[in-house]
Amino acid sequence: MPNQMLLGQRVLITHADAFMGPVLCEVFANHGAVVMANSDPLTRADAPAAVIAGAGPIDVLVVNLAMPAPTTEATDVTDAEWDDVFAALVHPLPRLCRAALPAMIERRAGKILLMGSASALRGMKRASTYSAARGAQLAYVQSVGVEVAPHNVQVNAIAQNFVENPTYFPPEVQSNPKFQERMRREVPLGRLVGATEDAEFAAYLCSKSANCFVGQVFPVCGGWVTR
Amino acid sequence: MPNQMLLGQRVLITHADAFMGPVLCEVFANHGAVVMANSDPLTRADAPAAVIAGAGPIDVLVVNLAMPAPTTEATDVTDAEWDDVFAALVHPLPRLCRAALPAMIERRAGKILLMGSASALRGMKRASTYSAARGAQLAYVQSVGVEVAPHNVQVNAIAQNFVENPTYFPPEVQSNPKFQERMRREVPLGRLVGATEDAEFAAYLCSKSANCFVGQVFPVCGGWVTR
Amino acid sequence: MPNQMLLGQRVLITHADAFMGPVLCEVFANHGAVVMANSDPLTRADAPAAVIAGAGPIDVLVVNLAMPAPTTEATDVTDAEWDDVFAALVHPLPRLCRAALPAMIERRAGKILLMGSASALRGMKRASTYSAARGAQLAYVQSVGVEVAPHNVQVNAIAQNFVENPTYFPPEVQSNPKFQERMRREVPLGRLVGATEDAEFAAYLCSKSANCFVGQVFPVCGGWVTR
Amino acid sequence: MPNQMLLGQRVLITHADAFMGPVLCEVFANHGAVVMANSDPLTRADAPAAVIAGAGPIDVLVVNLAMPAPTTEATDVTDAEWDDVFAALVHPLPRLCRAALPAMIERRAGKILLMGSASALRGMKRASTYSAARGAQLAYVQSVGVEVAPHNVQVNAIAQNFVENPTYFPPEVQSNPKFQERMRREVPLGRLVGATEDAEFAAYLCSKSANCFVGQVFPVCGGWVTR
Repeated sequence: MPNQMLLGQRVLITHADAFMGPVLCEVFANHGAVVMANSDPLTRADAPAAVIAGAGPIDVLVVNLAMPAPTTEATDVTDAEWDDVFAALVHPLPRLCRAALPAMIERRAGKILLMGSASALRGMKRASTYSAARGAQLAYVQSVGVEVAPHNVQVNAIAQNFVENPTYFPPEVQSNPKFQERMRREVPLGRLVGATEDAEFAAYLCSKSANCFVGQVFPVCGGWVTR
Repeated sequence: MPNQMLLGQRVLITHADAFMGPVLCEVFANHGAVVMANSDPLTRADAPAAVIAGAGPIDVLVVNLAMPAPTTEATDVTDAEWDDVFAALVHPLPRLCRAALPAMIERRAGKILLMGSASALRGMKRASTYSAARGAQLAYVQSVGVEVAPHNVQVNAIAQNFVENPTYFPPEVQSNPKFQERMRREVPLGRLVGATEDAEFAAYLCSKSANCFVGQVFPVCGGWVTR
Repeated sequence: MPNQMLLGQRVLITHADAFMGPVLCEVFANHGAVVMANSDPLTRADAPAAVIAGAGPIDVLVVNLAMPAPTTEATDVTDAEWDDVFAALVHPLPRLCRAALPAMIERRAGKILLMGSASALRGMKRASTYSAARGAQLAYVQSVGVEVAPHNVQVNAIAQNFVENPTYFPPEVQSNPKFQERMRREVPLGRLVGATEDAEFAAYLCSKSANCFVGQVFPVCGGWVTR
Repeated sequence: MPNQMLLGQRVLITHADAFMGPVLCEVFANHGAVVMANSDPLTRADAPAAVIAGAGPIDVLVVNLAMPAPTTEATDVTDAEWDDVFAALVHPLPRLCRAALPAMIERRAGKILLMGSASALRGMKRASTYSAARGAQLAYVQSVGVEVAPHNVQVNAIAQNFVENPTYFPPEVQSNPKFQERMRREVPLGRLVGATEDAEFAAYLCSKSANCFVGQVFPVCGGWVTR
């Protein structure tokens, strides 16, 4: 049996049916959390506040925002692509935090963890829109993390890449020798990070043991970046 | 006489009347550049392309985007603040690059330098909106820099803070003993970076000597951050 | 009861009576580890190999190397200070790893965690010798981590600062209002990181859940540095 | 004619016949510096002070320390390799700085630039000894840079990799298609950084224009690392 490091913690996980959502729900529940898995779309301006309000009191908010990354060359990016990606990945973040933080600040306890991307830490070709959006997320977390730390509220981020998930790395991709060769070449770990490994680390960062981290970005990408 | 390291280079500087604009224009001209100082507002979707088109052939694009940083607490940020800051600092960047890059790629030469902010590299209180916008910029530069490098086009960024400029640090602020004490405490340099020092470094990064930098972020902030 | 995430793991902790040694021993034991607490001095060239050999099979090696940090100005550092600090903090590290790695590589499992210092990530006055030594440690871990990852051996580091421990921060220091003011100013967390918080994170990084990290440096310093 | 940004500056360059030494001497002289090219071995404890004393007054010290990087696996590194590399790359650095800094501090002007390595910023296989030594250098520079900044003395470092030089990348290597393929894969720039590009940047950092940088590490490695 996994340990109960989140025992009784009320955890809201957004986009619970996408990206890292399903595995986060499973792992957090295994650790004793009361998981509120929410799959509402969050692009409408009033959606984030409604989701927070509907959840009731929460101890932990996991901001998991999913969107397939466009692979457009920088010169071919359209305003529509840019707006869509920012609408999905960026703008919901401050709205969720604004809605969740006051109660956390008032009772001097709470955690927000962003499931972010290492694509904001190291340049990748044909990923300019996505990287920019992910960069906005990380810088936001750094700033808010420092700001709310004196209230004993912790805001941090995982910056992941090369983490196993069915959307980006389905079995037929993983079994492709060319893909395996690329893993060996680009990812020091030599394999994808397991979805559960990623979720376990997220759970740790949301546990009481991790009250000491504020505004910090943790790469989880098999050594593709380490800082 | 300053050296002529930008001799004959056609350099377009945006928001030339604000932020680092005036000193950039002066220093680049001193180095022999043909400076096209443009002060058009860039928030309208079609403005960036129009500015690039109006400039004719350019060797160097300096993306200087100015906006006073809001100092709102994260819980009090409004959608309007967020949208305004992103409209001013973020969305013009890909539009400018999309308009400028094709000609640079075609002739296999060109440089884009973003005058960015170190607030995206280190968390600051009451700066969440601004930091997020600046983080989007830096991650965008990293990604595009890597993408266009094979075309011999260099895209890089300065990430500045504590640089002398009349908007943020007017004389009465600089002569305030409390401000000087804060400088000593927070900024290893012990003083503001001079506006000219910042602009000289920008000029260097836009010169032929600096063809080797791609997608790189250079902190210019007196040691407040160093990486 | 704490969870048993290190159940049955044989963990060798060096300098177990100093620096983070005592709390590491306690926390790792609470998580079910078979802790081998070793307090042998490690400066003699043959000492590290002897300690590893004497421990028998080990699953996890925690390299905890203690030494009070000199506070000498750079101009006054002596060769003796430099040599002593490198003898205590740097040279034992490759000797310990050389002795421990072959068995780990052979059975394709094992972890080494360095209890390093964030002083190598951000410049501090009057800490040049200590910072240099700590910088050697972190770069070594990065390199070896990448090298042995294909053997399913994980080598990582914590880079700590402002972590509670009786040597650097005894109660009379912690209760000093000036010290508390310094904490608020320099450390976003606003307090020292608890010794147990640090040790819990170390335990997590040494658990099976953390097989995905290779050659990575994790700051644990209350936000003093975040990357 | 190159500009004279180092006009009349007395610059001491160590190991002037090795690593980046020859090109540094040439480029600095082109910029008007009075170059003191010193090729004395520096491993003996008293050698660094003797070199500094013999040079007379110096405005700029360029610490260029050369040694072929061993490519030993971590498990096979010997004490002899470790000691030799640290003797060549690490221990001369504080001795040089201790000898050069007092005069710089006294006249409140001076610069030290370390020609360091990006191998300390990103893990590389079979480079543990070399990376550790280079990591000690960079952390030392960060610390001393912060410490002497209030005296108007600037201490900084270049962290280079994939820079053209005859030792590591002779013509037959560069013309090898496999090597070119590796460049394209690992180095976003797609080619080696030119030796002159590296030396020009070093010259800039040693010029009066660069008084604002303190304890900073500048990667020069074609985007292999960017921070």
